[in-house]
Amino acid sequence: MTTIYHRARSAAVKLAGATRAAKDQALNAMADALLSNVDKIVAANAVDVASARDAGTPESTVDRLLLTPARIEGMASGLRQIAALPDPVGEVVRGNTLPNGLRVRQVRVPFGVVGIIYEARPNVTADAAGLTLKSGNAVLLRGSGSAARSNAAIVAVLRSALTGCGMPEDAIQLVDASTRDSVKELMRARGLVDVLIPRGGAELIRTVVEESSVPVIETGVGNCHIYVDESADLDVAERILINAKVQRPSVCNAAESLLVHASLKDTFLPRALKALADNGVTVHTKPEHYGTEFLSLDISLRVVDSLDEAIDHIRRFGSGHSEAIITSSLAAADRFTAEVDAAAVLVNASTRFVDGGELGYGAEIGISTQKLHARGPMGLPELTSTKYVIVGEGQIRG
Amino acid sequence: MTTIYHRARSAAVKLAGATRAAKDQALNAMADALLSNVDKIVAANAVDVASARDAGTPESTVDRLLLTPARIEGMASGLRQIAALPDPVGEVVRGNTLPNGLRVRQVRVPFGVVGIIYEARPNVTADAAGLTLKSGNAVLLRGSGSAARSNAAIVAVLRSALTGCGMPEDAIQLVDASTRDSVKELMRARGLVDVLIPRGGAELIRTVVEESSVPVIETGVGNCHIYVDESADLDVAERILINAKVQRPSVCNAAESLLVHASLKDTFLPRALKALADNGVTVHTKPEHYGTEFLSLDISLRVVDSLDEAIDHIRRFGSGHSEAIITSSLAAADRFTAEVDAAAVLVNASTRFVDGGELGYGAEIGISTQKLHARGPMGLPELTSTKYVIVGEGQIRG
Repeated sequence: MTTIYHRARSAAVKLAGATRAAKDQALNAMADALLSNVDKIVAANAVDVASARDAGTPESTVDRLLLTPARIEGMASGLRQIAALPDPVGEVVRGNTLPNGLRVRQVRVPFGVVGIIYEARPNVTADAAGLTLKSGNAVLLRGSGSAARSNAAIVAVLRSALTGCGMPEDAIQLVDASTRDSVKELMRARGLVDVLIPRGGAELIRTVVEESSVPVIETGVGNCHIYVDESADLDVAERILINAKVQRPSVCNAAESLLVHASLKDTFLPRALKALADNGVTVHTKPEHYGTEFLSLDISLRVVDSLDEAIDHIRRFGSGHSEAIITSSLAAADRFTAEVDAAAVLVNASTRFVDGGELGYGAEIGISTQKLHARGPMGLPELTSTKYVIVGEGQIRG
Repeated sequence: MTTIYHRARSAAVKLAGATRAAKDQALNAMADALLSNVDKIVAANAVDVASARDAGTPESTVDRLLLTPARIEGMASGLRQIAALPDPVGEVVRGNTLPNGLRVRQVRVPFGVVGIIYEARPNVTADAAGLTLKSGNAVLLRGSGSAARSNAAIVAVLRSALTGCGMPEDAIQLVDASTRDSVKELMRARGLVDVLIPRGGAELIRTVVEESSVPVIETGVGNCHIYVDESADLDVAERILINAKVQRPSVCNAAESLLVHASLKDTFLPRALKALADNGVTVHTKPEHYGTEFLSLDISLRVVDSLDEAIDHIRRFGSGHSEAIITSSLAAADRFTAEVDAAAVLVNASTRFVDGGELGYGAEIGISTQKLHARGPMGLPELTSTKYVIVGEGQIRG
């Protein structure tokens, strides 16, 4: 029996040798195909949306599931943006000639087969398919059951676009989302799947990280702090606090915790509390909230006596995503950036900038909060491995 | 209760901020301490060796366990070589200024706590302690029970050297090797241990890879092939075959399989068989041997009809370590290096060159055969993660 895994591996072999031109042509064909099939995708999505409403799903979740013509256009333009990005495959990462004349180079190569496990939002289907294709990988997409019809429609459209330009359609495959067994199977497919990327809630990510024998890149949970140091410019502090908390509270790089130096308790603190209240933010001061990723208009607050106490607090409660200090002290900035252990540390800037698009990497497959392979926003190079190519004229080891 | 894990984490925080000068001083002090305590280490080792012999351990394994004054001098000189290598911590991997003025840099930082699980050879204890210290990591060393007294003596000496130069002694800790529970505990210590590196036999590596929830870097199994293409220079082919098979058959980058193009069956094949026989190598031609990592003076042999068949064979039976082609055809070299999926692909060079020392990386912690994070020989940079440092003047996201 040929499984999805074996079909993906065969497709991966072909994709690994595809030129940038061929891949970009496929990405643009995929974008065109999405636009020509808006009605079909919207119709499939309508069934998912109706089922979700029937099941009493909260309207905010239904909204994440909903595909409109404008959102499908957004998916298409995302694919075109990926086509415009440089090809990571073939990049020479390092290289030299050894004293014995051997020419050594370390070259970027695709992983092979990438598995992505994700929740609700069907736009991830097109983004993930585009990023993996550009990086020369076959992808196995395991979306949520609630988006099964939408994902099936999108994947069918993308696969027929691949066939149309001579690329292997099995480079993009949807995994059965009707049972949890398919997730378990993906997690045990070591040797067939090269890397697994879970995107979604903390529970999903924890399960995959703990149970997978396939190597995992952990993404996303963000309990991000804004620490306002005693020497902070208070205008800057207020502006960054409100931006980091309010601009898009549902995402992983939003601020979830405010730490204020005790010397500011009569100056910045009342001002911050007023600004937060004016923006509809509820402030929580009990220690049980320090570790909470609210993803809503809520924030935890603690007054700390020193920079040391702020760093200790972040060490205890941070999730290793993005942590910011507001300060005008060079010494405080240096200590904070050196001692806080996170994917990103920021000085006088909003945590919301920790994002592949903002850093200029184009679309991102996720933000890694682990230390192995990739840390922080993942662009195309993070979807590749490397290979040593060593060329000689008969050298042997003495 | 303060566990070894919490003591390692505290030590890691201090080590992360240590200067190169402090680390190099510690490494040299560790080397001095080994040399001043040769008698103590040899005495402890003698007890391990006697126990091993009493238990009927094969003499080849006893030899790997044995420490002589010369081998301890080798460990000390390895530590001094590590001191001479550049410090990977603080290296700016990439960086730029964004259009909004944010200054972004991605900087190498230590992982934090590294766990190493290894078998028999006690010299790994000093190598691993040195490499992790230089890369700013605390290390938890879980050696084999058969080397417990040797490892305890070495670690005691290294820890006292650390204390002597003001470094935290808990940067180097030995994990109880008397039970398998300590391995299980290491594999479940996610959040306390940042990465786990198993070094040793295939069975040990498989267990760790499958059962660990801590991220793992897989090392070592090597079923390496030498493919002699129809256009090969036969002198080069014979020289490389014998070097790759015979020079040190017990290591992972030794050749285990010979593939010969059918057009050479009356020219190179008899010559190769004679040379292998002259060097005491037994040739196996049954398909059940194609996947075997012999680690001895044995080799599997297959005659293939084409480059395609050679590549297919390697795809089926290779372990993704090191694969060589002997050819004078540019097209064949290009196809082989592009299509064979391995940590290293070689043209007209011995697989024995796939080694950190040979590539100029100094001592190596292992050769990664996985695609995530590190692939191929791992030097000091492979023992680090990265961190984004983003500096602004009050920028917020629009």
